[in-house]
Amino acid sequence: MTEPFDVVDIIIDKRDGHRLTPSQIDWVIEAYTNSRIAEEQMSALLMAIFLRGLERDELNRWTGAMIASGERLNYAGIAKVMVDKHSTGGVGDKITLPLTPLIASFGLGVPQLSGRGLGHTGGTLDKLESIPGWRAALTNTEMMRQLETVGAVICQAGSGLAPADRKLYALRDVTGTVASIPLIASSIMSKKIAEGTAGLVLDVKSGSGAFMTELDRARELAQTMVEIGADHGVHTTALITDMSTPLGLTIGNALEVRESVEVLAGGGPADVVELTVQLAREMLDSAARIVEREGIPAAGIRPASAEAMQQAGRLREADPREALQNGQAMDSWRAMIAAQGGDPEAELAWARHTEVISSPESGYLTGLDALKVGVAAWRLGAGRARREDAVQAGAGIVLHAKPGDFLTGGQPLMTLHSDTPTCFERAHQALVGAWSFASQPFPPTPVVRARITM
Amino acid sequence: MTEPFDVVDIIIDKRDGHRLTPSQIDWVIEAYTNSRIAEEQMSALLMAIFLRGLERDELNRWTGAMIASGERLNYAGIAKVMVDKHSTGGVGDKITLPLTPLIASFGLGVPQLSGRGLGHTGGTLDKLESIPGWRAALTNTEMMRQLETVGAVICQAGSGLAPADRKLYALRDVTGTVASIPLIASSIMSKKIAEGTAGLVLDVKSGSGAFMTELDRARELAQTMVEIGADHGVHTTALITDMSTPLGLTIGNALEVRESVEVLAGGGPADVVELTVQLAREMLDSAARIVEREGIPAAGIRPASAEAMQQAGRLREADPREALQNGQAMDSWRAMIAAQGGDPEAELAWARHTEVISSPESGYLTGLDALKVGVAAWRLGAGRARREDAVQAGAGIVLHAKPGDFLTGGQPLMTLHSDTPTCFERAHQALVGAWSFASQPFPPTPVVRARITM
Repeated sequence: MTEPFDVVDIIIDKRDGHRLTPSQIDWVIEAYTNSRIAEEQMSALLMAIFLRGLERDELNRWTGAMIASGERLNYAGIAKVMVDKHSTGGVGDKITLPLTPLIASFGLGVPQLSGRGLGHTGGTLDKLESIPGWRAALTNTEMMRQLETVGAVICQAGSGLAPADRKLYALRDVTGTVASIPLIASSIMSKKIAEGTAGLVLDVKSGSGAFMTELDRARELAQTMVEIGADHGVHTTALITDMSTPLGLTIGNALEVRESVEVLAGGGPADVVELTVQLAREMLDSAARIVEREGIPAAGIRPASAEAMQQAGRLREADPREALQNGQAMDSWRAMIAAQGGDPEAELAWARHTEVISSPESGYLTGLDALKVGVAAWRLGAGRARREDAVQAGAGIVLHAKPGDFLTGGQPLMTLHSDTPTCFERAHQALVGAWSFASQPFPPTPVVRARITM
Repeated sequence: MTEPFDVVDIIIDKRDGHRLTPSQIDWVIEAYTNSRIAEEQMSALLMAIFLRGLERDELNRWTGAMIASGERLNYAGIAKVMVDKHSTGGVGDKITLPLTPLIASFGLGVPQLSGRGLGHTGGTLDKLESIPGWRAALTNTEMMRQLETVGAVICQAGSGLAPADRKLYALRDVTGTVASIPLIASSIMSKKIAEGTAGLVLDVKSGSGAFMTELDRARELAQTMVEIGADHGVHTTALITDMSTPLGLTIGNALEVRESVEVLAGGGPADVVELTVQLAREMLDSAARIVEREGIPAAGIRPASAEAMQQAGRLREADPREALQNGQAMDSWRAMIAAQGGDPEAELAWARHTEVISSPESGYLTGLDALKVGVAAWRLGAGRARREDAVQAGAGIVLHAKPGDFLTGGQPLMTLHSDTPTCFERAHQALVGAWSFASQPFPPTPVVRARITM
């Protein structure tokens, strides 16, 4: 087979700071996915991209080529607007669990294709697998049927979506080319766009427990992803949210499911409720815009028709906080769990051993470091170091206070949970310096730091 | 085996513009040479080095680690000062052939370990192999004996010298990381220093036929190599010489040996004689400094002794031009060729077919492009495209004029030589635009453009 390009020329072009052409980009992604470009050549190109960047038009093409490397799901036959949410990952981030059924309870479809956790951030599938009987793997047909009936689906992403990303991610991981904004943005967006959603809300975390510790970098990543979404016809909005401290009061699989159910029952920690409601607001508004502009073809609703405007108005007026209070979201949750074989009434696992950490002093808790707490929960068995490792359903950490709270010395600060008591010592090590106190009250950090859209 | 470093951390350090530590550098070269670092990881590091550079101390350590990856030759038992020359490669560059025996004729040792040609630049071994019986491969013992008796050796570099360079070079070739000054400099200098020479003279070419087309880049490369030599105890001097037009009047293997023999017989083209004499002057002066400072231990000559000063004075007064005229260099040439099985009297091959290109107009030849002439000679069969290809001994080009000469329209400009007449057409294509004429005479470009030493 004669190739239209020599990959060395493409590497040299990017190395020297030139813009890659659309046909160079299309070819390089296709040829790499099909193993006609060697790993050592792609890693040199990735390093050149890391250091030289990609212009907006290059990055859109690059993402498009990644999407084109596999299948793109299509929900044209389903009479619902599809909206999705993606989080860049954080500690105690269980928002997908209440948010997905909440949105579906307003008649929207949420095709939430998720992954497992690695390192200190948990994975949505790991959390749900603590529910007896629940299964993550669905066929495309099962997923479509569930979107039609329940509307809410959280399942494992199939290997057919953006296979270029899987190869590229594995290579970036071993070649020091992970932390590049264009490469992160194209990785996330290629999968989300291939999932076929019409609207997308991004939760871009910033702070010690996030991939992007700096607010400026989080903002740049969010802006880049919003542009890619817009350029691929997916209405995309991003919220930049705080991840300097864990979300909610629980970190760990079953522990986080319990907290999510509390939120769906109208309770739960204020920060989890607040973020769930704000993300829901964005998804509902996004769906409203989509139904106005595109209609819902499978429901016979034409763009900009009276019916479309009426539907959009209904979505704009919808009150997600109320839907958490009145049981509407909980009903949707039960239906979603049951549709995937789970028992929503089942008792969830508890870890066999616990250990309480008491407050070392009296004062206002000023900080509780998300990264340190995340690493501690991981060491207790809630996370995994390698893809093939198992996680403990019951392991993790329950916080008894959050920054801003006043504690008396000796009062419980957090409880560690694990099936393997030998892990407590390593968790303690991870928590050294995790908290700080002050004698004066201080204003809490807002959950949502910024909003980015086009 | 537990490794002291994770290569990903080293890649990230260089990617972010940090200086690598000596132990990081030692480990990365050793582990890569022994295949404990994957090709895709080393290529990412090479691209990071390409774009971020190496500081002088990093580069010295990098070069030292490459030397340490293999054996380093040692001539302590030989009662001669060892001086060597390296050219970065050009078109018609046969200087090594007359220069090596010329220097040996003054009682010095010249351990000239050479390679074969690839692309448009010829290889010294390819040229000498056009002499019937001559063989390039010598054992270390044969080489040492020949250095003791004849003084002059031109042979194939053994695979034991800087094996890291062989792996790195093959990787750079396919990953767009060849044209990096620190990587080029460390590649050349690791091999030359491992050869064990005490003095080194570099001929760094600049112009269309050279690897470095720009004078500034050639100067930077020369400066970098001189520094590496000095930091490894090898007295190093560089001449930056013109490669905008071919050296001498011949390009091709047997054709260049004939021209070299003309120079050794006191004749030959002025530019070849000039460059041979200037490089010889540098090598003799370098040897003089070495004998003053280090003596010749195997000859019982102590540093800074009266005998050392006398020897140094004799080398400084030596007249290389005279040695080309009086047969002294020619005797050394014959001995060198005969010692490696060659017959210095044998008739050399001629190509079976020739074609004369006539001057298209009357005027002063202002330019004769080295790259285009080099590519044409390669296409005629003088060079190879892949390492495993054979070369034709007789193929090449004989020039009948050089820039500065006056030609009448129709007068012969050059003659193409090849065993395969089908190649003439491709050679003509390569020569399109290779020459230019003017009506007025103009000053010729000097052969030596600059001299760099410490």
